[in-house]
Amino acid sequence: MKKYGFLGLGIMGQAMAANLLKADFTVTVWNRTASKCESLINKGASHRETPAEVVASSDITFAMVSDPVAARKICFGKQGVLEGITMGKGYIDVSTIDPQTSIEISQAISNNGGRFLEAPVSGSKKPAEDGALVFLCAGDKSLYQEAIPALEIMGKKSFYFGDAGFGARMKLVINMIMGTMMTALCEGLSLGKKAGLNMSDILDVLDQGVIANQMFRLKGPMMVEGNFPTAFPLKHMQKDMRLALLMGDDNGQALYTAGAANFSYIKARNKGFDDGDFSAVLQAIKE
Amino acid sequence: MKKYGFLGLGIMGQAMAANLLKADFTVTVWNRTASKCESLINKGASHRETPAEVVASSDITFAMVSDPVAARKICFGKQGVLEGITMGKGYIDVSTIDPQTSIEISQAISNNGGRFLEAPVSGSKKPAEDGALVFLCAGDKSLYQEAIPALEIMGKKSFYFGDAGFGARMKLVINMIMGTMMTALCEGLSLGKKAGLNMSDILDVLDQGVIANQMFRLKGPMMVEGNFPTAFPLKHMQKDMRLALLMGDDNGQALYTAGAANFSYIKARNKGFDDGDFSAVLQAIKE
Amino acid sequence: MKKYGFLGLGIMGQAMAANLLKADFTVTVWNRTASKCESLINKGASHRETPAEVVASSDITFAMVSDPVAARKICFGKQGVLEGITMGKGYIDVSTIDPQTSIEISQAISNNGGRFLEAPVSGSKKPAEDGALVFLCAGDKSLYQEAIPALEIMGKKSFYFGDAGFGARMKLVINMIMGTMMTALCEGLSLGKKAGLNMSDILDVLDQGVIANQMFRLKGPMMVEGNFPTAFPLKHMQKDMRLALLMGDDNGQALYTAGAANFSYIKARNKGFDDGDFSAVLQAIKE
Amino acid sequence: MKKYGFLGLGIMGQAMAANLLKADFTVTVWNRTASKCESLINKGASHRETPAEVVASSDITFAMVSDPVAARKICFGKQGVLEGITMGKGYIDVSTIDPQTSIEISQAISNNGGRFLEAPVSGSKKPAEDGALVFLCAGDKSLYQEAIPALEIMGKKSFYFGDAGFGARMKLVINMIMGTMMTALCEGLSLGKKAGLNMSDILDVLDQGVIANQMFRLKGPMMVEGNFPTAFPLKHMQKDMRLALLMGDDNGQALYTAGAANFSYIKARNKGFDDGDFSAVLQAIKE
Repeated sequence: MKKYGFLGLGIMGQAMAANLLKADFTVTVWNRTASKCESLINKGASHRETPAEVVASSDITFAMVSDPVAARKICFGKQGVLEGITMGKGYIDVSTIDPQTSIEISQAISNNGGRFLEAPVSGSKKPAEDGALVFLCAGDKSLYQEAIPALEIMGKKSFYFGDAGFGARMKLVINMIMGTMMTALCEGLSLGKKAGLNMSDILDVLDQGVIANQMFRLKGPMMVEGNFPTAFPLKHMQKDMRLALLMGDDNGQALYTAGAANFSYIKARNKGFDDGDFSAVLQAIKE
Repeated sequence: MKKYGFLGLGIMGQAMAANLLKADFTVTVWNRTASKCESLINKGASHRETPAEVVASSDITFAMVSDPVAARKICFGKQGVLEGITMGKGYIDVSTIDPQTSIEISQAISNNGGRFLEAPVSGSKKPAEDGALVFLCAGDKSLYQEAIPALEIMGKKSFYFGDAGFGARMKLVINMIMGTMMTALCEGLSLGKKAGLNMSDILDVLDQGVIANQMFRLKGPMMVEGNFPTAFPLKHMQKDMRLALLMGDDNGQALYTAGAANFSYIKARNKGFDDGDFSAVLQAIKE
Repeated sequence: MKKYGFLGLGIMGQAMAANLLKADFTVTVWNRTASKCESLINKGASHRETPAEVVASSDITFAMVSDPVAARKICFGKQGVLEGITMGKGYIDVSTIDPQTSIEISQAISNNGGRFLEAPVSGSKKPAEDGALVFLCAGDKSLYQEAIPALEIMGKKSFYFGDAGFGARMKLVINMIMGTMMTALCEGLSLGKKAGLNMSDILDVLDQGVIANQMFRLKGPMMVEGNFPTAFPLKHMQKDMRLALLMGDDNGQALYTAGAANFSYIKARNKGFDDGDFSAVLQAIKE
Repeated sequence: MKKYGFLGLGIMGQAMAANLLKADFTVTVWNRTASKCESLINKGASHRETPAEVVASSDITFAMVSDPVAARKICFGKQGVLEGITMGKGYIDVSTIDPQTSIEISQAISNNGGRFLEAPVSGSKKPAEDGALVFLCAGDKSLYQEAIPALEIMGKKSFYFGDAGFGARMKLVINMIMGTMMTALCEGLSLGKKAGLNMSDILDVLDQGVIANQMFRLKGPMMVEGNFPTAFPLKHMQKDMRLALLMGDDNGQALYTAGAANFSYIKARNKGFDDGDFSAVLQAIKE
């Protein structure tokens, strides 16, 4: 039976590693702040002092960190992942990183004889706890296949899209659609209100039709109240829109709708909603 | 027990009247082409020669016609609805008409002592047959309340939004959101494809997340194949976008995203997709 | 020698009629507020009590009024232009009116045996005084040719575009380009300022290059100061943008740039700049 | 009297150096293809074998190369500018480069004791020959002041905008405004044509009003004919739009109009107009 490593035990990583342990997998953990390892050690995890040691003592190591900068550091840094990689080792980064960063990590791991998979997730805290994440995988296919048992514990679904970079690209496309759907909703709510309709009524009608979806259902009523508790920060959505638009520019795809949406997120950032939920774009649109 | 009239027996009207009969309501029908009344007569409906006679012999009369021009004609025309209206009669237009037309019909009915309700529906053939339509009502409230038993037979849900015109406005807001969601999807699909992703994969990932919705699920796979069987004609979506944008202009609401979407529908019309499904906007966007 | 009539003696009409008199033309005037006729009478004009009488006593009558409503009233109203029209009379409306209004007036004049020319002007007070207006004519060609001597007195240039309506359409196209150029300038100024450039420097550089133009030169320095003295009211520019966009919709022309510009004018109207100069759109864009 | 160097003798550099010689300045030249130096040598220029030698034997050295890659190479390459820099030497790059490249070159020159000025030009072949260029300078102020006599020979006007990078930013702002003015013109021409107007008439009317400008006057008539002889390649305009939009993203400036314009340039690139003049965006807009 395979031995797993897990690096980065924030809200997401904590829940994901716990699910692996619950399924009786062998898991060795590491976190920058060591105290966060304790509850997992109590559930049966081993512990090492550095990412390199976790990788050295595991067949497949997962990493879940906050951003591309942290992803580079945990890989390339002193006593980082790269130092533990030997022939055949598997390294799976489930963080959300850009295609470029992912490709650079992939090449470094390969050059050291290891195998790399990028596997950004769709889903946040609750799906992580419920083992209901979705993995958007790309990179080494043999590693993907070997990792499926673990991915199936942590998620409800996994996809494989080919070479490293395509998982990141998929995430940008999905977020671009999501971000534009949100401005479409906000324009509809704002227009309706100005024309004398009740915003809650609009949400109710939407929820009866073919475009009913969980995002409108969950965020809509709070938006109507002017509440934007942060599930996905607006500044991150705007950065994803920007990256998606650059991808459009690189690939010769005009994105008139998404481009207009991006500017509304920029306006919302100017109004101080950087750290609010991306649904706070309503505040920029309703003016 | 109330007596109902039903004018206009196309695909939608046929199914709706049939549901009323199945629930043992008393229904008198009329259609411009009289032969379309036969199957309903066989199911127990009475028949009259003119809209005026149907109204005269019913407490509440429904009309389901194709557009504002037909709605005006059936009301104001010779032997039309108006000639049958007497004190307290109810007239419910369930066609999709613009606010202006609805308000004019409303005033004419009121001036003759009758009561008017606009009740455009959300949903097409299948929901009509299943009694699963959604009614967006506005106008005379007492009439709305009296009609609820009939609306509950024909639909799964009904809303009441106040004065005549607000049902039509609600419909435009909903369709504007729907139309913009569609261009957001198309831009995502086109971008993904150019960047080396598989369009079907994008649909699969979307369907696993919080923005999963029936429209993407039903139309998406056909769009990927280049099939656009008409459920809602592109030219009608574009006209609704145009009306919604004018509503924005009238009410001082900037609609950058929806405005961009509208131009993509205009481009699609130029390419000959007037009568295709509105999802054919993909063909204009992917270029 | 022809006898001319002139109806409507506001800032523009006053200056235009004065130029006709200065050139020794025979001119009969009328204005709703009769006192405004005095200075022209002193310069040699005759005066009549109603538009109909002016038309009856002139070969060609000009009208310069504020908007389509006034244009309809002076034509169709009691003792209006139409009552004075007889076979061969010429009527030239130099007001800015929409194609539809122009076409209706044209037909009415024709039906009474008269000839109609629409001739909206490009240029405001100063060019009117200097005889430097530009006339965008459309309608009866024989009337256009007969009117050339008068048009040459009042303007520096006149165009003839065919049937009535095309002068109005030309004006909308020109104003749409002008309105979009203005938002382009404002976006450039705002971007530059945020990026650390001096807005006056941007204007100076623009004025040295191939896109140097009088509008940037005249309005730019005031815009930098936050001054927007009204030459062309923002609300009128926005209405013209709206009409041009509807023309695009009617003719199947996507207008992504102009559409975005229109929404910025709508935002500026919301901020209270209705009666300011259209350059005040800067205030909406810089936010 | 100061000794000048000139590196890069393409169409622009050739003309600029010739003007310095004509004014009796001492000029030493270098070009990658040495044969291009001959006509200048005949006019009195000295010649050196490497950029480093030119810099070493001159007080102030100008460089005019094609793009940021060439600008980096001539500076950082073997026997490049940097190797010739000693305390107090002046280096002026008049190429069009991005702010980032300019800042990096500036720091390298400073670190070696030299002084750097970026001075991208507005104007092409004809103004270069006529000594009518416009210089957008930024960087070392003392160098700017010392260079004024030379700039006045080669140009009609020079600006100084502060630290290195601001000249490049100014150029992007100017080109963004120019690029958006062009799509505004194209949308107007296309709309007008579809509405039955003559595109040449539109140009004529534009040329009579306050937005008349040389760009419309020079390019317009060729655009109407479907001719787009390359003065400024469309792909370069699109790249400048992209850089300006990123600048907007970085500085929190929504650019709805320019963003829409950029997508039309992307569409035109897709249609194969990369190397045509940027006015060929008309072909994408008219569809």
